[in-house]
Amino acid sequence: MKSGIGIGLIGLGTVGSGVVKLLGENAGVISRRLGAEVMLVKAADLDASRAKALKLSKDIYTKNADDVINNPDIDIVIELIGGYRPAKEFILSALKNGKPVVTANKALLAMHGEEIFSASEKYGAPVGFEASVGGGIPIIGAIKQGIAANNIQSIYGIINGTSNYILTKMTDEGREFDDVLDEAKALGYAEADPTFDVEGIDPAHKLAILANIAYGTPINFPDIYTEGISNILPEDIRYARELGFKIKLLAIAKLKDGEIEARVHPTMLPEDYLIAKVDGVFNAIYVVGDALGPAMFYGRGAGDMPTASAVVSDVIDISRDILCGKSGRTPVASFRKGNRKKLSVMPIDKVRCRYYMRFTALDHPGVLSKISGILGRHDISISSVIQHGRDAGSAVPIVVMTHGAVERNVRKALAKIDGLDVISAKTVVIRVEGEE
Amino acid sequence: MKSGIGIGLIGLGTVGSGVVKLLGENAGVISRRLGAEVMLVKAADLDASRAKALKLSKDIYTKNADDVINNPDIDIVIELIGGYRPAKEFILSALKNGKPVVTANKALLAMHGEEIFSASEKYGAPVGFEASVGGGIPIIGAIKQGIAANNIQSIYGIINGTSNYILTKMTDEGREFDDVLDEAKALGYAEADPTFDVEGIDPAHKLAILANIAYGTPINFPDIYTEGISNILPEDIRYARELGFKIKLLAIAKLKDGEIEARVHPTMLPEDYLIAKVDGVFNAIYVVGDALGPAMFYGRGAGDMPTASAVVSDVIDISRDILCGKSGRTPVASFRKGNRKKLSVMPIDKVRCRYYMRFTALDHPGVLSKISGILGRHDISISSVIQHGRDAGSAVPIVVMTHGAVERNVRKALAKIDGLDVISAKTVVIRVEGEE
Repeated sequence: MKSGIGIGLIGLGTVGSGVVKLLGENAGVISRRLGAEVMLVKAADLDASRAKALKLSKDIYTKNADDVINNPDIDIVIELIGGYRPAKEFILSALKNGKPVVTANKALLAMHGEEIFSASEKYGAPVGFEASVGGGIPIIGAIKQGIAANNIQSIYGIINGTSNYILTKMTDEGREFDDVLDEAKALGYAEADPTFDVEGIDPAHKLAILANIAYGTPINFPDIYTEGISNILPEDIRYARELGFKIKLLAIAKLKDGEIEARVHPTMLPEDYLIAKVDGVFNAIYVVGDALGPAMFYGRGAGDMPTASAVVSDVIDISRDILCGKSGRTPVASFRKGNRKKLSVMPIDKVRCRYYMRFTALDHPGVLSKISGILGRHDISISSVIQHGRDAGSAVPIVVMTHGAVERNVRKALAKIDGLDVISAKTVVIRVEGEE
Repeated sequence: MKSGIGIGLIGLGTVGSGVVKLLGENAGVISRRLGAEVMLVKAADLDASRAKALKLSKDIYTKNADDVINNPDIDIVIELIGGYRPAKEFILSALKNGKPVVTANKALLAMHGEEIFSASEKYGAPVGFEASVGGGIPIIGAIKQGIAANNIQSIYGIINGTSNYILTKMTDEGREFDDVLDEAKALGYAEADPTFDVEGIDPAHKLAILANIAYGTPINFPDIYTEGISNILPEDIRYARELGFKIKLLAIAKLKDGEIEARVHPTMLPEDYLIAKVDGVFNAIYVVGDALGPAMFYGRGAGDMPTASAVVSDVIDISRDILCGKSGRTPVASFRKGNRKKLSVMPIDKVRCRYYMRFTALDHPGVLSKISGILGRHDISISSVIQHGRDAGSAVPIVVMTHGAVERNVRKALAKIDGLDVISAKTVVIRVEGEE
């Protein structure tokens, strides 16, 4: 039996630095659990100052990723540079060399997951990607192993900490989106260009990975309907509260009649749901299995050490394969190669859920009757109405909560309603999850 | 490669019946993930009517557990009869025959875990026990693999659904313990003899298992301080709420200066903590890792199908070992055999936390001064006081919340206080977790 596992690391940014620290600080507990030492053999980064800050020796630090990928003393390659290129080439080269890979690169897996999974299977080298979703939360391991006996019925994830921080602050303090975004940038919770986070792209990347391994189907980022939180207004958060709901940016996947629903959008959730109480930068993934029932996994979805926790736990998992001389024990994509099947993704038009609608209408008698008439003709029935302001002749909000309706009908109805003389602004619509 | 895994089941009670159903209903998803069929070869139970209800064929049903343990067609033995005897003998015999075992038997593992773990290591046959803690929640797998890179700092578990159901009802409806217990029995949430559940014994069994694998130390049920919820009164729940706390039956394990804290008792938690919001029969385990930070795992802690989910997920895990021809990949007790070490368990007297105290005092001037004087002389400082009733000469409650104090000092101080003339009933004490 080997007495040590050699690690090569590509990328010494936030997470990479966390991994270097964790391998050092927790060497004791890691070897006590694993029965072997895990040693950092090489670490590559173009920026030498990062290696210096970590006090990496000259033997370990290199500018050249090939020194990692082609190094015979390295058993596992960790890729933490992010982005598509050259990360993809590094990963494929490592796999081709028979070296297992651990990565946190959700964007890459969401766009090129099938190519990477195929290479993993072809060369018999596993790929660990626990760190790609939910930071330190072991959700990938749970789906691949802990709840593997289940048909997974649905997944609801708060899997973007930046958006959840912003929505939490908007909710608790009644502030505007832009105002809180500026604060999040100053605190380092949002990047200078926050598009990926606030427009739902990052959680859609993660949802692609979760849906892939939950349902045994290739599904990529472009298949997922994506809508962010930049248009959410404090007044809609207030009305949500009045109706007993909270607004969260949810990543949702469901299997219905052999079709996959996969969508990311602001969602109203009953405020007494446990996942509605997940606030700030925290992440949570709520999973419903046919045997398990509902379960929730909660924790820090980002940050150097929580993400390093997931990376190094994958290193331990793969090291266990290496130490017993067998790999490919658990399929890289959770289902055995020949047992995955392409499922179609339901277009957003066909999705059925409840809807929150805020109309801006002139305060005339009969307006609500016109609105409800059009909704009714599109098979949309109203569950409750809030109409506070009374200000004859000027525009007032009318808030409607519907029963379950089909998105296509909702769009058609709203096009008609927004064309009425008495409607003075585009209607705001937010999808609602929970009992119909 | 083997194309099928033979399963032998001992015990066709609630969970055993759930396992039979799950192996049948989810055969598709199980074989798609595993790449092999999992087949029930034999199922033993003394009560033939259970086999009949499940429509088990005569080939499969047997009254004799030896038909399972000694059957050459059986690769994995599932023990679901519970209790110490003959469950222990069945498990040890199966392991001696080289057969891996899956069990939900927390009482047995909490009392005889070391003997079973040793046999597992000696005979090279794994033991899966995901179902022993938290029903379908994959917490054992998380500790052994998903967060394995961490030194675990603390664990806080709501791991007895019966107690959590009773406390939730008492809290929401202001009802008495006995009244809700009767209801829980009628609903099947409590057994006819509810001692194990309401006196904290069942969660202490589970805590022994969690602490064992989290800290790599043999720790058994008798090492754990255990106190139940049968003395909790609605008025203490009301005062807790007034102070911003909820009362939960918590199983707590911490590693402090090389010593383990392990205790189960009613605990006041700040009501805004996520785990304080886990209500009804649900379970949750809140774990703090040094890299991970806080994480929480939530789900159904009991019931036929959630528990069967954990059992069959263990079957899949062990089947993966069998299919690749290697076992013992992950140590049965999470740490490698030679790397576990006996840690001492801190006696409850040395535990330090905050305390809630409800004194019953005659409404004389100077009573609070006497109480606070005695507390002060025992190094216990007061953080807040509630004194509502004013009824000169009769007994009124005085509620005190302390800062961090040591249990030994608290006991000494209360013995003195309860001996005062002005104190007319035994003081109620509840431990508090949260910021000091």
